[in-house]
Amino acid sequence: MSKKKGFWSSLFGTDDNSNTGSANMATERLKVIVASENRLSNRLTADRIEKMKREILEVVNKYVNGVQIDDVNINHRSEDSLDVLEMNINLPEHKK
Amino acid sequence: MSKKKGFWSSLFGTDDNSNTGSANMATERLKVIVASENRLSNRLTADRIEKMKREILEVVNKYVNGVQIDDVNINHRSEDSLDVLEMNINLPEHKK
Repeated sequence: MSKKKGFWSSLFGTDDNSNTGSANMATERLKVIVASENRLSNRLTADRIEKMKREILEVVNKYVNGVQIDDVNINHRSEDSLDVLEMNINLPEHKK
Repeated sequence: MSKKKGFWSSLFGTDDNSNTGSANMATERLKVIVASENRLSNRLTADRIEKMKREILEVVNKYVNGVQIDDVNINHRSEDSLDVLEMNINLPEHKK
């Protein structure tokens, strides 16, 4: 279990070097991960991933205002026999 | 990176003891994870966060073909400062 703990922390920590600056500015992030044993690309074409991304963005925007398409970035990578699609969503600053 | 590798393998390996049988029958498994930092609870109630995550899972479901809702189980857990909603899906065989 301790391995997992470290993993999750690293998801939001050192892995996102590009965001270390904004992390200090209280940017909140949401992460969506899709992992499959077989090639996801059999089921998800780039076109469908793009559509899915937009729909997820719509859902997030229903709950958190002002999230832009640029705030979502997607990584697709393979590890061992796993195919992993990782989506990072930066949420805008919270206005009260 | 080796930690991640181990993590992802474990996601589909020892963690899913209940499914070890079906793995031999070429069932495809898919895992979808929606994770947020706990700070999100400053702006959204736990209830709304949960709803948002379920809606995101529904979108992913729609884009990955042929998921029967019975084959989905959802876990909710907290780790460190993260709030994680995890969905495990047994996919029916891929039909072209």
